[in-house]
Amino acid sequence: MPMAVLQSSLYLLVLLSVIFPVAKSQRNQPMRLRFGKNGEFKILQVADMHYVDGKTTPCEDVPSSQLASCSDLNTTAFLRRMILAENPDFIVFTGDNIFGDDATDAAKSLDAAFAPAIESNIPWAAVLGNHDQESTLSREGVMKHIVGLKNTLSRVNPSDVNAIDGFGNYNLEVGGVQGSAFQNKSVLNLYFLDSGDSSTVPGISGYGWIKSSQQSWFQLTSANLKRAYMRQPLPQKSAAPGLAYFHIPLPEFSRFDTSNYTGVRQEGISSAQVNSGFFTTMVESGDVKAAFIGHDHLNDFCGALNGINLCYAGGFGYHAYGKVGWPRRSRVVVANLEATSNGDWGDVKSIRTWKRLDDEHLTAIDAQVLWSKTFVGGLI
Amino acid sequence: MPMAVLQSSLYLLVLLSVIFPVAKSQRNQPMRLRFGKNGEFKILQVADMHYVDGKTTPCEDVPSSQLASCSDLNTTAFLRRMILAENPDFIVFTGDNIFGDDATDAAKSLDAAFAPAIESNIPWAAVLGNHDQESTLSREGVMKHIVGLKNTLSRVNPSDVNAIDGFGNYNLEVGGVQGSAFQNKSVLNLYFLDSGDSSTVPGISGYGWIKSSQQSWFQLTSANLKRAYMRQPLPQKSAAPGLAYFHIPLPEFSRFDTSNYTGVRQEGISSAQVNSGFFTTMVESGDVKAAFIGHDHLNDFCGALNGINLCYAGGFGYHAYGKVGWPRRSRVVVANLEATSNGDWGDVKSIRTWKRLDDEHLTAIDAQVLWSKTFVGGLI
Repeated sequence: MPMAVLQSSLYLLVLLSVIFPVAKSQRNQPMRLRFGKNGEFKILQVADMHYVDGKTTPCEDVPSSQLASCSDLNTTAFLRRMILAENPDFIVFTGDNIFGDDATDAAKSLDAAFAPAIESNIPWAAVLGNHDQESTLSREGVMKHIVGLKNTLSRVNPSDVNAIDGFGNYNLEVGGVQGSAFQNKSVLNLYFLDSGDSSTVPGISGYGWIKSSQQSWFQLTSANLKRAYMRQPLPQKSAAPGLAYFHIPLPEFSRFDTSNYTGVRQEGISSAQVNSGFFTTMVESGDVKAAFIGHDHLNDFCGALNGINLCYAGGFGYHAYGKVGWPRRSRVVVANLEATSNGDWGDVKSIRTWKRLDDEHLTAIDAQVLWSKTFVGGLI
Repeated sequence: MPMAVLQSSLYLLVLLSVIFPVAKSQRNQPMRLRFGKNGEFKILQVADMHYVDGKTTPCEDVPSSQLASCSDLNTTAFLRRMILAENPDFIVFTGDNIFGDDATDAAKSLDAAFAPAIESNIPWAAVLGNHDQESTLSREGVMKHIVGLKNTLSRVNPSDVNAIDGFGNYNLEVGGVQGSAFQNKSVLNLYFLDSGDSSTVPGISGYGWIKSSQQSWFQLTSANLKRAYMRQPLPQKSAAPGLAYFHIPLPEFSRFDTSNYTGVRQEGISSAQVNSGFFTTMVESGDVKAAFIGHDHLNDFCGALNGINLCYAGGFGYHAYGKVGWPRRSRVVVANLEATSNGDWGDVKSIRTWKRLDDEHLTAIDAQVLWSKTFVGGLI
């Protein structure tokens, strides 16, 4: 008789895997990211480079006087300038890294797109957008190519790619200052997710979404990180703050009006047609303080809902639609540690953000506090 | 170093549990529910009985002329009449079975509330609403008490209660006609979920929601049932249809207007403040054709969205708010099998629904087809 109910065995296995972690090998890896001696960790977010073939690629939505000389090389130049100006500890590319439809060789486009990050020797990571797979590589192929590039901490997936939807779901831990009491704790957790490209469900059109399997992975990872943070030595009272990076806006990005966000909303929120509940999953887990996306190039706002900041970066790339006279831009996030009374560095005290425009002075705008131990949300 | 990332081991275990089911004991259990010799399976849904103490319990929102003689016994009488009139194969109680706040002894109230079902010798099942735990038993206690009652197929949870949120998450399989080719197949799958009571997440008020852990269980169960249905003997091309029962409306119940539902919407949709994505999870799984809830007593509509019917039952109980002159009501769902050319019964051909009012004639209203193999949604 085909009684196919296996939940007893499954839940026992899940429970056992939580109680008795077996994959201890990762524990012996060195902390790949950590706060600097100044108690700071700075992340540069680059959204929607839409890279194609380099200097032969035309720009979109720039003043007509600049059209003739504008190409993907402007995107490259902007990225180099941002890296020089901010000297970040880490760079995150939140998808549509290449515009596959126009790219003749996906691997070459990816190599060129990420070249400034690679040259900088700063560790970097990327997730997929909805355009990355439109050229000569599949989504899996693009993510595998990215993972093979120099200095990247990107990963294809936590484990078996058949067990989780999408490509590019992984997390990174940011350790406390070397030599400080928190040197062996992840004091800031970064989550990366594949928000898909288009719906694959019959009868539902539009963009993709973060699936249950990815949310289960996120939830389990968050719970494990929290447990580790609250464990000896130096047990903490609650989870370390987390930041999430992906491409497509959650439906909850539509819940703001101009009274409760910083930045601009100049176009619609292009979410999936359905709400797969990842916002709620983040709220339940309780550690994520902000989610950073791209996708809608003309939106660059950041607003807080139920304790989580939902932040656009604004479009970065020149072969991507934009708005003439509205400069390409990039988002910076910086976390600062608490300076303890004995002169040591403690846990994360605050997380701030601002954006820089690709103008003569790389003008910084819209600085705001995303989270602090004593105050959540609001302007600086 | 507290590298707490265990996903490799977890996903391997999950994968193994899917590939190599170990809990085979359930396969030897007899099919508890199956279609009748007439190729039909009929379910009576009872929403929001709000039972308290019996004849001393006052009624709400009934004509003043009936107030003196009206009590919980009217709820009992209505349930007996419905069972006699419809002679269902199965009865489902979708929560707020008792109104805990007013009940002096939860166990006694539960016993009295379900008594007509128990007396009828018809198998029945129940889920929890947001009021069941307000008396002398916790949510777990209420569900455990229910599971101990006669003729119920209710279960507390699939397995370890620590591994899944809530109490009363389980599924039931409905076999084909005894002696037919489908006698050993579950041709209709029933899912029961605990939609919670109030939010337990700091900073979020309002009602509860179906959590990720419950959705993962649902998703895995649905996938396993589909696999079994498409397996030898008599392998089918797609999943058997499914029906879901729980208490609190999903946010997607707000997506209808009068042009695209059958029934009435006389009050707001009292969903949780957040969308936890269970509607999307059901759409992804693809087998659930309708979800049946209660909670908002003055709504009794049923509308289709992305191939899934979202249906209220309308309030049943007399110690529950209602509307004077708008009769208490109950929803019936009937599934019919395909009669094959060789005189045998096949798989499910159609699923229909109607409601009956607690008036002199138990008037049937709002008959509609929820699903058929050849046509989805719409009026009869």
